[in-house]
Amino acid sequence: MNRNPVDVRPVALIAFGGNALVPRGSEGTEDEQRAEAEKVAAILADLARDHRLLLVHGNGPQVGQLLIQSESARRQVPPWGLAACGAGSQGVIGFLLEAALRGQLEAAGLDPKVASLVTLTEVDAADPAFQNPTKPIGPYYPQFVADDLAGRRGWKFVRQDQGWRRVVPSPAPVRIYGVRTVGALLEAGAVVIAGGGGGIPVVRRPDGTLEGVDAVIDKDLTAALLFREVGADLFVILTNVARVEKDYGTDRAMPIDRMTPREARALMAEGQFPPGSMGPKIEAAVRVVEASGRQVLITSAAALAGALRGQGGTRIVPEAP
Amino acid sequence: MNRNPVDVRPVALIAFGGNALVPRGSEGTEDEQRAEAEKVAAILADLARDHRLLLVHGNGPQVGQLLIQSESARRQVPPWGLAACGAGSQGVIGFLLEAALRGQLEAAGLDPKVASLVTLTEVDAADPAFQNPTKPIGPYYPQFVADDLAGRRGWKFVRQDQGWRRVVPSPAPVRIYGVRTVGALLEAGAVVIAGGGGGIPVVRRPDGTLEGVDAVIDKDLTAALLFREVGADLFVILTNVARVEKDYGTDRAMPIDRMTPREARALMAEGQFPPGSMGPKIEAAVRVVEASGRQVLITSAAALAGALRGQGGTRIVPEAP
Repeated sequence: MNRNPVDVRPVALIAFGGNALVPRGSEGTEDEQRAEAEKVAAILADLARDHRLLLVHGNGPQVGQLLIQSESARRQVPPWGLAACGAGSQGVIGFLLEAALRGQLEAAGLDPKVASLVTLTEVDAADPAFQNPTKPIGPYYPQFVADDLAGRRGWKFVRQDQGWRRVVPSPAPVRIYGVRTVGALLEAGAVVIAGGGGGIPVVRRPDGTLEGVDAVIDKDLTAALLFREVGADLFVILTNVARVEKDYGTDRAMPIDRMTPREARALMAEGQFPPGSMGPKIEAAVRVVEASGRQVLITSAAALAGALRGQGGTRIVPEAP
Repeated sequence: MNRNPVDVRPVALIAFGGNALVPRGSEGTEDEQRAEAEKVAAILADLARDHRLLLVHGNGPQVGQLLIQSESARRQVPPWGLAACGAGSQGVIGFLLEAALRGQLEAAGLDPKVASLVTLTEVDAADPAFQNPTKPIGPYYPQFVADDLAGRRGWKFVRQDQGWRRVVPSPAPVRIYGVRTVGALLEAGAVVIAGGGGGIPVVRRPDGTLEGVDAVIDKDLTAALLFREVGADLFVILTNVARVEKDYGTDRAMPIDRMTPREARALMAEGQFPPGSMGPKIEAAVRVVEASGRQVLITSAAALAGALRGQGGTRIVPEAP
């Protein structure tokens, strides 16, 4: 690597959900996820001309699939914890994205250099989230099954429209392992896939060993932490809408072109951005803007190219000095 | 990375089976695999003082577990192909090894720099292995289930002692993606985990896209290819015996201290090394010695430290000039 010139293109961190590969109404077959990965990769390859890319994907649907698979086979194969399910999802999603990106980068006449890293993220064993699990995950159960699992496995459940659903802790990311590796690979000009699903949740035991825990980590918060640690230039959160809206889903819905952290916090306090969906994205964006003084762009994959040229998207911008 | 001095320690590629984490008689729970990973990591951390390490692990037991999980849940979740199962196993094994290695390297007073890469390995769609699947994988089925799966899914089966078992193609690795990344990370002094399970098998379509295929790749052959491509210095194949034996398992068993490729081929021709176990290791070792002119060491994890000092282990050495 010392022989290569240093790559000076700005580093764009792109965070997107695991549902980018599992569109609504799809069964989530491997072929469907591969086809979606090709679409996302084509958009990202276009972006890769002028940017070095750091990709942080979510894993909601995939970790749900793994959990169902692991539980279905529990009489034949010891079931996995959520850390191992998260690790498995990093392998599968990393594979689909890397395969698609290599093809699309080459088709775009670019160097098809892609690295998918298995990423561990440390959380604090004393994080209050462990006392108060809130993140729904996996299948819907009838009540008697939920009661049984609560008794036998100590799982917590919430009642949702379609049945009872397991809830798991979502502690804050404290430390991402492998930041230097990510930095070195970006410097070498690779498209880097890291921090998938927010990272595999581990706690650090007093003797220094790292152990997986039954939790999930919000990928946007991990992306925000990775952005700061790597010193990236541009933070993009891809979602299913081209722009964030005020009064989303009502007659009065109004797209937001730009807002400062203060304005965003005021809208959050009004309950404009629901906790399970747009809330964590705005929260992550605000943290990044406040800590880095840089803008954050929230938009959809389809609107990304235009938004980068200033047409469309929602920008969270630093407070005017 | 340009700021760091170049690491001059020799690069040792260590290949070991997925069963290194699932000892015989174990159920293969996550806790058991974690405990075994800690043991392997302690041995490797010791080696890391004087070597840069490139680790290529197998995934036989883990990919079998994933396949059973995937098939058990097939009415709820679309089942995965073998490429995705291989990818999932890279995630899970990479996680367990990286977590253990970081702790053990730190305990040894070394820089805990570890990178686990998701690795794609290209195979040739015209490889004759696709016409003649030979590698047994996954659970044992009663005959009526095997017949049903053969009809519905087109799977091939062999009769083994405990029942019918699916056999899948094991094509030769043609190209490993990410070799430059592996090289750059080794140069930066990281312990690198790559090529797990021989790599995720992909074929290259005429339009340049990479697509996973239902196959498994021998990890020792992938390790041999990676050894040459990376230009590593020392090739070690860890197995469950300290030394390769002639007439293994008989009264006349004799440990082999060293042999040349010619001697190894003669013994292979005698049927000394069974195809499913020691055979591919000897085959990979012979290829490496012939292509690189370097020695290959075959030994067990427990005997490794001694073998590196010349006490124990079996060395495949170049023919005397």
